[in-house]
Amino acid sequence: MEKTNGVKFIIVISVAVFIFVYSRYPPEKLGCSVSTPSWCSTKTHRKSNLRSNSIFDAGMPNSNHYFTDTPLHPLDPLTVPEINRVRSILSAYEPFTSSFPSINTLSLDEPEKIQVNGWKTGDPFPPRRASVVAFLNGQTHLVTIDLGPGLVTSDVISTGSGYPILTNDDMATALEVTYSNLEFNKSILARGVEFDDLTCITPSSGWFGPEEEGKRIVKVQCFSNQDTPNFYMRPIEGLTVTVDIDKKEVIRIIDTGRGIPVPKATHTDYTYTTNSPFSDKAPMTNPMSMEQPKGPSFSVNGHTVKWANWVFHLKPDIRAGMIISQAMIRAEDGEYRSVMYKGFASELFVPYMDPDQAWYFKSFMDAGEFGLGSTAMPLLELNDCPRYAYFMDGVFASADGRPFIQSNMICIFERYAGDIGWRHSEIPVMGFNIRESRPKVTLVARMAASVGNYDYIFDWEFQTDGLIRIKVGLSGMLMVKGTPYENIHDISNTNTMTGPLVSENVIGVVHDHFISFHLDMDIDGANNSFAQVNLVKEQTLSGQSPRKSYLKTKRNVAKTEDDARIKLKLYDPSEFHVFNPSRLSRLGNPTGYKIVPGGTAASLLDLDDPPQIRAAFTNNQIWVTPHNKSEEWAGGLLVSQSKGEDTLATWSARNREIENKDIVLWYTLGFHHIPCQEDFPVMPTVSSSFELKPVNFFDRNPIMGVKPTFQNDLPVCSVASSC
Amino acid sequence: MEKTNGVKFIIVISVAVFIFVYSRYPPEKLGCSVSTPSWCSTKTHRKSNLRSNSIFDAGMPNSNHYFTDTPLHPLDPLTVPEINRVRSILSAYEPFTSSFPSINTLSLDEPEKIQVNGWKTGDPFPPRRASVVAFLNGQTHLVTIDLGPGLVTSDVISTGSGYPILTNDDMATALEVTYSNLEFNKSILARGVEFDDLTCITPSSGWFGPEEEGKRIVKVQCFSNQDTPNFYMRPIEGLTVTVDIDKKEVIRIIDTGRGIPVPKATHTDYTYTTNSPFSDKAPMTNPMSMEQPKGPSFSVNGHTVKWANWVFHLKPDIRAGMIISQAMIRAEDGEYRSVMYKGFASELFVPYMDPDQAWYFKSFMDAGEFGLGSTAMPLLELNDCPRYAYFMDGVFASADGRPFIQSNMICIFERYAGDIGWRHSEIPVMGFNIRESRPKVTLVARMAASVGNYDYIFDWEFQTDGLIRIKVGLSGMLMVKGTPYENIHDISNTNTMTGPLVSENVIGVVHDHFISFHLDMDIDGANNSFAQVNLVKEQTLSGQSPRKSYLKTKRNVAKTEDDARIKLKLYDPSEFHVFNPSRLSRLGNPTGYKIVPGGTAASLLDLDDPPQIRAAFTNNQIWVTPHNKSEEWAGGLLVSQSKGEDTLATWSARNREIENKDIVLWYTLGFHHIPCQEDFPVMPTVSSSFELKPVNFFDRNPIMGVKPTFQNDLPVCSVASSC
Repeated sequence: MEKTNGVKFIIVISVAVFIFVYSRYPPEKLGCSVSTPSWCSTKTHRKSNLRSNSIFDAGMPNSNHYFTDTPLHPLDPLTVPEINRVRSILSAYEPFTSSFPSINTLSLDEPEKIQVNGWKTGDPFPPRRASVVAFLNGQTHLVTIDLGPGLVTSDVISTGSGYPILTNDDMATALEVTYSNLEFNKSILARGVEFDDLTCITPSSGWFGPEEEGKRIVKVQCFSNQDTPNFYMRPIEGLTVTVDIDKKEVIRIIDTGRGIPVPKATHTDYTYTTNSPFSDKAPMTNPMSMEQPKGPSFSVNGHTVKWANWVFHLKPDIRAGMIISQAMIRAEDGEYRSVMYKGFASELFVPYMDPDQAWYFKSFMDAGEFGLGSTAMPLLELNDCPRYAYFMDGVFASADGRPFIQSNMICIFERYAGDIGWRHSEIPVMGFNIRESRPKVTLVARMAASVGNYDYIFDWEFQTDGLIRIKVGLSGMLMVKGTPYENIHDISNTNTMTGPLVSENVIGVVHDHFISFHLDMDIDGANNSFAQVNLVKEQTLSGQSPRKSYLKTKRNVAKTEDDARIKLKLYDPSEFHVFNPSRLSRLGNPTGYKIVPGGTAASLLDLDDPPQIRAAFTNNQIWVTPHNKSEEWAGGLLVSQSKGEDTLATWSARNREIENKDIVLWYTLGFHHIPCQEDFPVMPTVSSSFELKPVNFFDRNPIMGVKPTFQNDLPVCSVASSC
Repeated sequence: MEKTNGVKFIIVISVAVFIFVYSRYPPEKLGCSVSTPSWCSTKTHRKSNLRSNSIFDAGMPNSNHYFTDTPLHPLDPLTVPEINRVRSILSAYEPFTSSFPSINTLSLDEPEKIQVNGWKTGDPFPPRRASVVAFLNGQTHLVTIDLGPGLVTSDVISTGSGYPILTNDDMATALEVTYSNLEFNKSILARGVEFDDLTCITPSSGWFGPEEEGKRIVKVQCFSNQDTPNFYMRPIEGLTVTVDIDKKEVIRIIDTGRGIPVPKATHTDYTYTTNSPFSDKAPMTNPMSMEQPKGPSFSVNGHTVKWANWVFHLKPDIRAGMIISQAMIRAEDGEYRSVMYKGFASELFVPYMDPDQAWYFKSFMDAGEFGLGSTAMPLLELNDCPRYAYFMDGVFASADGRPFIQSNMICIFERYAGDIGWRHSEIPVMGFNIRESRPKVTLVARMAASVGNYDYIFDWEFQTDGLIRIKVGLSGMLMVKGTPYENIHDISNTNTMTGPLVSENVIGVVHDHFISFHLDMDIDGANNSFAQVNLVKEQTLSGQSPRKSYLKTKRNVAKTEDDARIKLKLYDPSEFHVFNPSRLSRLGNPTGYKIVPGGTAASLLDLDDPPQIRAAFTNNQIWVTPHNKSEEWAGGLLVSQSKGEDTLATWSARNREIENKDIVLWYTLGFHHIPCQEDFPVMPTVSSSFELKPVNFFDRNPIMGVKPTFQNDLPVCSVASSC
């Protein structure tokens, strides 16, 4: 019995491993084949019926020539030839000559800010360097390579607690080891799940003390995909396999949930052809589109995006997903003025709220453990991004150091949402007949990371009035827990549940999401200060006024990092300004930007709880640190299983000076999620945002340059069916 | 000298008064003339090139027939014939036969909820009644009229402290009295302002103790409109005239600011033809439009709006601006289920933070003092609302009881903002090739109230997943204060300033905005309960788990009003559910909706400060009260100069039972505003929102019925210039 199943299973494993290997190492890494649509280059960029001499073609001299691509800007990501060159250099590098390491990340080592800002089109490039995190024989190498001379210029072996980002190979190994384990196979069999219907995922293990230290650990948990692509709704509860992925062995199997049925597939399929639970299956609304009769008004040249009064550099990144650099806005006199040197999602912490053996470790650090870029699948035209969107591919390196293309990973589009940029009417009693209004058109750069069940949609939205809105949308499916119960009336003590019942035998476990943004603001130059502008209630003096109280601003400029660790308070409100003390406006105000939080949530975990130590960047909503090239990742450079010794909190604890320095602003956006039945079988996007907004940066509002829309600006025939 | 100016001024007054009178009493109240475009009926409804047999025509049987309009639904506003009938009835009513009162509001007295919910198309209507607030001889009459028999059925003379909403006549009177005052004229002259360039506004006086009690008071403050339509940026600082509008006399003139220059007009003009400070004057972006090749998918029949799975009643209101009633959503089985019986903006409190004699009283209650409907000017096609928007007119009564049309006051449109309703991709390691995404299309009902300098944009947005988003946008111009200073370096003590310098001689005074929403939720029926679902940190027991802490929900159902007065706390978070304890979901969960706050602000004024007493609805963010027809206006029915004895806070203090009752949820959305140079000369829209979101209301998410967008759904020729 066991033997038969073992044999049967080996076949399944082979198929599974073949899929991974095939996905990861397509035969013609950069050719397109039908069977590897997402991992090959299509370089379509813009799918709509643009004329051939469009701005996009003009801006993309190297279209469809990945093998000959050259960088156009010092911040451009490594090209295919450059990645190939890095691989050659590494292969010839002494420690790696006998055995090539696993390449966990391989990306541009950005030049110093002063070099980048000093560079102009046509200038020679600052040296092109690569930064590589490589893993070999239990050691993490932090390697820097100078592509000019073709040399490894630095190779530091990490002595910290964390391991690099997991590669697809690491995850495939964990699954392979699990699938070969007899105890695991027995448990699957005992639960009545067919091996053909098995889908397993590889949650990160976190760090919870010495037991799992000193080895790279991945947990494996499984689901039934029988009769549904939405296997997340069909957990095989309580079965957790812990794998040492370097030794390729199972360390431990926890198998506690055999009495819990696998939830049914009923109504879980979300694919369009079969999904609709509505009897008529009719679409709810007629088709709708953002149309631009004269085409979009932005241009993309390599990675440089120009739109309205903005120009910025945009690139895909294997870890951050996307990076906005050198965001500059044009002033009235035509000068492009610096707003932000570099902005990106630095870490994403997702703690689940269940102390159970199969759940306690679920405290994901998605950027540092899996990568927001490596999990960013191609965006879908018309559904993920509107018509006229421009699509940008990611060029990354595989675990073997070879380049691969993450196609259509970022989209850029102009957005008209029916919103009003500015308006004013005058009521007739004033004697004026004023009816002024300006529609709001913005530019959005979007990416969506699919980290397992959750899809994180990142939008950077630029407005002509100088505002930047950073929005995170959460979509996908819940991570659910199996339960014997089908109805809450069957449950004698609901207090034992770690989340609500969202379907029969399905609990939606309570959890949080925290996204930390690294915002290297450079307002009119690198040296900036941070001010907290507190709104304080003042009481009037006796006889001073019929009013008893009013609010007054108190401005405090932060001297050191201690002054800039901020918890938001509804009843003790402040504005938070990054400003340039050396550049004054016409009126003598320092030019600045403020960060405007929107709806958010704070982490409530114990400060000494291991997940909270590792995600200590959630201890505050706002932090300010001096710029330091080694402090980019809020949860640390090496996050997997780290003990949290290299986080934003440890850097900030040094209490360095931050006044009139090159400073970085950090903001953590949070979500609490108590699930409900509406989160089954999929979760409509929930989003929240914050803004970076000019404060005395402009002498008057640039929205004054926005023109109203007139009827003859618009397409006039698209309503008619004959059009 | 004085005499000459007096004479000159009398001419100016005559013109000014003529403008008001003309605006208020156009010769043919309901005809259109070129000179009164905003106050006459155009009844255009939909301006785009719709075919004549469109859904709108079918839904609007009485288009262009205001004189014969009849209601189609028990909640429909009073029609033109009904308003005329009310006026006749009032004219014949004993107390008003000799002198017709000022009609401050005249609107439908809505039937009881049970009558409205019981009514079906074709049924006879519940009695049509009018509710009139009339002012005569210093007395406020609260009159109810039954239109059937044509009788005044109730006439209560208010004994409370407040006065009704100010009419345009009241404001015109205040200006007329001011313009006739010699001391005022002298001061204007002394400041070097030409009478021809004078524009005056009528801020409400608030209530600050006995001095101004017992008489209807309006303050008058003035601006120079020389060389700009944006007179708000040119204040004549420190000059405040207090007028008794019933006695038509000046009570007091405060004239303290003669040393303060009127700020220059430079760069204040915002009109399109002359505004652009940008050298090229080119539009920043190409035109853009939301196109719907098959037309919009909503229909409007009278005031009933149907779209996707929603149906609701929408009507203009002189005080609330717009009212959403009987919002219902279709379940899978086709049943329309009740979500909200009535929702509207109940009050809008705007306290300025300056104890100065010319500023202390600025603590506006815009809904109750001026009316959000009476200040809602026509929305502009393509700029205030996208193409394919449907426009709805308001039918209101003037101070003389005659009907007038507030044209294009509300617009309804479908919104596609490029957002993603739901998405999921699977990373290749899972072995699935999943790329699913659904664009988000919503329905918006919009109105914009121009209450003096500020334009408040109200959006009610409906989603197919059952969510309702209520958004308030703030636009227009700042209310600014004149100052002698041109540069902050001229100011020895900036601590004396009540706001930042935003232009030469212009201070942007710090202020708040609070909008209270009345949300009569009826989840699957009238009797509902309110639960606070608190997220509480639990510590694990020793040895229980490697985790030290996690979050758990604690659900507390409110018994009385005391249990439901809520201040939001970032570090003590909760969800807030309105649910129906008698209707259970498939899983046994009670069906409900939760209110999801977004970014907001709290009032920090002293609780015993007069403005805070009057706006005590801002003492908490959330309140729940039992449904009571007389408790609709959070700041009281009669707000002008009220002492705050009839507010949400006083009702709630009765601590009535609210469990399994017909309850009303109240939410106050707040904004702090510390101005900056970017608020000059106009303010780009700043917005915030909150949501009403289903919780265990649906058995699974209705977004499953939404279809992806395909290329052939969309217009394909609009890109080409030949199209």
